[in-house]
Amino acid sequence: MTDENKNKKNNKKNNSNSEDQNSLGLTVKKSEDMSEWYSQLVLKAELAEHAPSKGCYVIRPRGYKIWEAIQKYFDKIIKQHNVDNTYFPLFIPESFFQKEADHFEGFTPELAWVANKDEGGERLALRPTSEAVMCDSFSRWVRSWRDLPLKINQWCNIVRWETKATRLFLRSREFLWQEGHCVYATEEECNLDVLDMLEEYKILCEELLAFPVLTGRKSEKEKFAGALATYSIEAFLPDGKAIQAGTSHNLGQGFMKAFDVSFLGQDGQKHTPWHSSWGISTRLIGTMVMMHGDDKGLVLPPRVAFNKIVIVPILFDKTREAVLNKADEIKNMLAEFHPILDDRDEVTPGWKYNEWEFKGVPLRIEIGPRDLDAGQVVFVRRDNGEKQFIKIEDLKEVVPEQLELMHQALFDKAKLHLDESIFEVNDWDAFMSAYEAKKLVKVNFCGEDECEDWIKDKTGGASSRNVPNGDEGMPAEGAKCFHCGKPATCVTFFSRSY
Amino acid sequence: MTDENKNKKNNKKNNSNSEDQNSLGLTVKKSEDMSEWYSQLVLKAELAEHAPSKGCYVIRPRGYKIWEAIQKYFDKIIKQHNVDNTYFPLFIPESFFQKEADHFEGFTPELAWVANKDEGGERLALRPTSEAVMCDSFSRWVRSWRDLPLKINQWCNIVRWETKATRLFLRSREFLWQEGHCVYATEEECNLDVLDMLEEYKILCEELLAFPVLTGRKSEKEKFAGALATYSIEAFLPDGKAIQAGTSHNLGQGFMKAFDVSFLGQDGQKHTPWHSSWGISTRLIGTMVMMHGDDKGLVLPPRVAFNKIVIVPILFDKTREAVLNKADEIKNMLAEFHPILDDRDEVTPGWKYNEWEFKGVPLRIEIGPRDLDAGQVVFVRRDNGEKQFIKIEDLKEVVPEQLELMHQALFDKAKLHLDESIFEVNDWDAFMSAYEAKKLVKVNFCGEDECEDWIKDKTGGASSRNVPNGDEGMPAEGAKCFHCGKPATCVTFFSRSY
Repeated sequence: MTDENKNKKNNKKNNSNSEDQNSLGLTVKKSEDMSEWYSQLVLKAELAEHAPSKGCYVIRPRGYKIWEAIQKYFDKIIKQHNVDNTYFPLFIPESFFQKEADHFEGFTPELAWVANKDEGGERLALRPTSEAVMCDSFSRWVRSWRDLPLKINQWCNIVRWETKATRLFLRSREFLWQEGHCVYATEEECNLDVLDMLEEYKILCEELLAFPVLTGRKSEKEKFAGALATYSIEAFLPDGKAIQAGTSHNLGQGFMKAFDVSFLGQDGQKHTPWHSSWGISTRLIGTMVMMHGDDKGLVLPPRVAFNKIVIVPILFDKTREAVLNKADEIKNMLAEFHPILDDRDEVTPGWKYNEWEFKGVPLRIEIGPRDLDAGQVVFVRRDNGEKQFIKIEDLKEVVPEQLELMHQALFDKAKLHLDESIFEVNDWDAFMSAYEAKKLVKVNFCGEDECEDWIKDKTGGASSRNVPNGDEGMPAEGAKCFHCGKPATCVTFFSRSY
Repeated sequence: MTDENKNKKNNKKNNSNSEDQNSLGLTVKKSEDMSEWYSQLVLKAELAEHAPSKGCYVIRPRGYKIWEAIQKYFDKIIKQHNVDNTYFPLFIPESFFQKEADHFEGFTPELAWVANKDEGGERLALRPTSEAVMCDSFSRWVRSWRDLPLKINQWCNIVRWETKATRLFLRSREFLWQEGHCVYATEEECNLDVLDMLEEYKILCEELLAFPVLTGRKSEKEKFAGALATYSIEAFLPDGKAIQAGTSHNLGQGFMKAFDVSFLGQDGQKHTPWHSSWGISTRLIGTMVMMHGDDKGLVLPPRVAFNKIVIVPILFDKTREAVLNKADEIKNMLAEFHPILDDRDEVTPGWKYNEWEFKGVPLRIEIGPRDLDAGQVVFVRRDNGEKQFIKIEDLKEVVPEQLELMHQALFDKAKLHLDESIFEVNDWDAFMSAYEAKKLVKVNFCGEDECEDWIKDKTGGASSRNVPNGDEGMPAEGAKCFHCGKPATCVTFFSRSY
C-alpha cells in the first residue's frame, strides 16, 4: 500500500491534535520498518500532511520552519556568490520544451498541462524546471561579454506529474525548491561554478543539517535531461538506501544554442556561452528527518531548530508561582534560543517530556521547587537523553556549548554510519553480498547505460549513485568493470536508493 | 493597444542591454501619459519583462529586490503577530470551490484548470486564493478551544486567468503574494485581527514604501467573494486613479461551516469559529513605481533600495589610481548601504549619472581629482537632484540623515497629493466636476449595489474605494446618498481606479 493510500484511511486520526497520548507514539521502530516509521513521524510530528489532490502535501508550520532555516542559510550563500533572485512564470509554452530534444524527451512523461487555451493556441505546461523559460529571457539579456557572467536564482514551486507512489517531502507532484542558473563566457568558469555550488550543498548538509554526503558525478543513465554532466550530493540513510539530495549541472551549450543565446566577445566575434544550473528542494527536509530521527520521534539538529529549548516547570499549588517566575526568568535569559515555556496545566510533566521529545526540540530544561533552592535545573539533550544538573547562572554558557556538541554528535553518528557502510569490491559475488547487506558498494565500473540497466535488473534496484570527484573517481590502470569486465572508466558507488 | 501587445512589438528593443543611451530615455512624460510612461519604465529599468505566455511576466533581479524588501519587512511583522508560515498545494479540487457558494460564483470565471486528470477523476484548479484548501486542513487541525487562535500565512504564486488587458505587476495571470489566514473562537478577536493587519499594511506603505493609503471597508459590490466584510488599503496615484494595494477580510463563519470546522469550547459545547484572511501582492511594486517615479526614471524609496548609493569616480589617466583608491575607501566606509562603485571605462560619467538616476538609486557620490585635495565629494539626492559638497569624513553621518530626509520628502509629496485630491461633495453635479478633474471624491452614499452600478455606468468608470473606519465613515444624521437621494449609510470615496 502506498504512503498515499494508507493516509487516506488514517488521515483524521494521524493529523489530529488529539490528547490521547498513544497517538503520539510510533507503532513501528525505525530499525524495523523505516519507511512506515517515517510516514508516521512526519504526520504525527505535524511536519506535513497529505493534500486532497493526489500526490501533493501541505507543509505545516513545524515543517515549514525547517524549510525557512534552509532558505535563510542558503539564500545568504547564493548572495555571497553574487547570484540575484528572480521570478519566472509557472507557465511554459509547449514549443519551448521541444527546442532542446533531450530535455523534451526527459520531461514529457511528467508534465502537467493547463486546460485553458493560451490566446495563441499553444499548450502551456506547468514548470517541471525552468531552463527553457529562462533561456528565452537570456537570449534578450545577454548581448556582450560585459553581460556575463549572468547569475540568477529562483525559489519557487515545481510540478512533476508523478505516476509512481509518492511520499511526503521525498516524491510528490508539487514541491518547493531553488534553482540557480548561471551563464558564463567560458567552459572553465562554468565548470568551476558547477563544482563550487556542489561544494556549497555539501557544506549546507554538514553545517546546517548535520550529516555528510558523497559528492560526485552521476552516470550517463542518471544525468539530467539536457545536461552535459550532472553532479549530485548523495546522503546515505540508516536503512541502507541512498538519496539524491541536490544536483548541480553543467548544461554545456545545448540550451544556449536551442534558444539562440550568444554574446559578442572582446574579440568582436559572436560566441555561444556556457550554462550551469543547480538545485535543492524540500526533499532535504525528509532526508534530515530520516537521518536523525529515532524511536522517540523527531531529532532536529540544533542549527535547524527554531525553538532550541523547551522549559518544563514542575508545578505544585504551593510553589507554583515561585517556580513559574523562575522558569520565566530563565526563558528571558535564553531568549536568543527561542525557548518554549510549557506551562500547561492539563497535561503532566511526563506527557510534556514525551511530546517535546517527539517534536525534536534539542534541549529540555526541567525546573521544580527543589531546584529553586539549589539554584539549578535538570538539563536533558534530545539526542542522547542524558540528564545533568546545571546551575542556573551557568545556563547561558552551557546552552550554546551543548547545542554545538549535539550538532557534532549527530554529524559524527551519521558519518560513522556512512564510513562503515562503504564496501569496496571487485567482483559480482562480493558486490551482491555487500548489496544484500545494504551497503554502499564502491566498484570499478564501465559507466555504460546498458551495463547499469543490467545491474539494476539483476539486483532488483541497485543504481549508481555518483563518481567521486578527483582522483578517487579514477580507476587504477587496467581495472575492469566489476560487472561486465570491460575496461573501467570510473569508480562508482552503487546502492539501493529513494 | 494593451500593454501586452505593445510589448510583443518592442520586446527585443526594450529588454536589451543596448548601449544606445537613447534607449534609457522615456519617450513620454509621466504627466502626459502615465500608463505608457509606466510600461516603458518597468521594462527599461529592468524590473520586469513580458513572459512568453500571455498575461504573465518575469520579475528581473532589480524588480525582485523590491519584492525581497517587502517580504523581509512584512515577514517580520507576521511573526510578531505569532503567525506561522506554511505551504499549501497549488492544486485545488473543483468540489472544494463549490462548498462556499459566493466564493465559487466569484472565482469561477477566472480559474485555470489542470488538463491532467486526478486519479479520482475530479478536475483540479490552480489556486486563485487558498481559503478552500486551507479550510479542509483546518477541519482536522481545529478540535478544541486550545487549538485557537490558529494563525498561518503563506508566501506563494497565485493564478487568475485574466481576460482583461494585463499590466506588469498590476494585473496578470500569475503573481506573487502572501495570504494570512486566522481562525478565532470569537467574532471580536476575528474583527480585531482584520483591522490590526489592515493597519500593518498601512504602516508598511508609510514606513517602507513611503506613501500614504486610505484604510477602510469596501462596498458590498466590491467585497471579496465569500467575505462578510472586506477592508482595503487604497493608494491614490499621481494620474488621479486609486489602486487597491492590499485587503483584509472578515470571512465570518461561511467557510468554517462549509468545511465543517468546529471546536469544543471551554463550556463543553461545539462552536463554529471565525475566520480572517489578509493579503498583499507584487502589485505593491507597481504602485510604488507609479507613486514615486519621474521623467528621469525610477525613484526607489531609501528603505526599499538595496543599493542605496552609487559612487561615480571621475577618471583621468594621471589621477586615475588615486581617485579609484579614494572611491574604494568610501565604498568600504559606507558598506552597510551596499554602494555600487561604477568604475566602467566604456561610458562617461554623465552617462553613468543618467543610468543610475534611471534605475532609481537614492544617492550619488561623485569624486574627481580636485575633490581629493579638498577631501570632499559631490553628493546628489535622487528625488530633488540637489548637489552638495560633503566632506568625506562627514559621509557616515550625512548618508543616513539624507536617506531619512529623502524617505520623508517622498512621503510628504505623496501625502500632499492625496490631501489635495480629496473633494467632499453633496450632489451629483459637484461629484461629476470633481470626478472629471480626477479627484478622490468623498460623498454620503446609500451603499447599495444597484446605485453603485448606476454611478459606474453614468461616469464610465467611477468606483467606490472604501468607507473610512470609525466616525469618519459615518454620515451625519439625515444625510442622503449624493446619487439616489435615499438615506446615506456611509461616507465613501469614489474615483477612477486601476
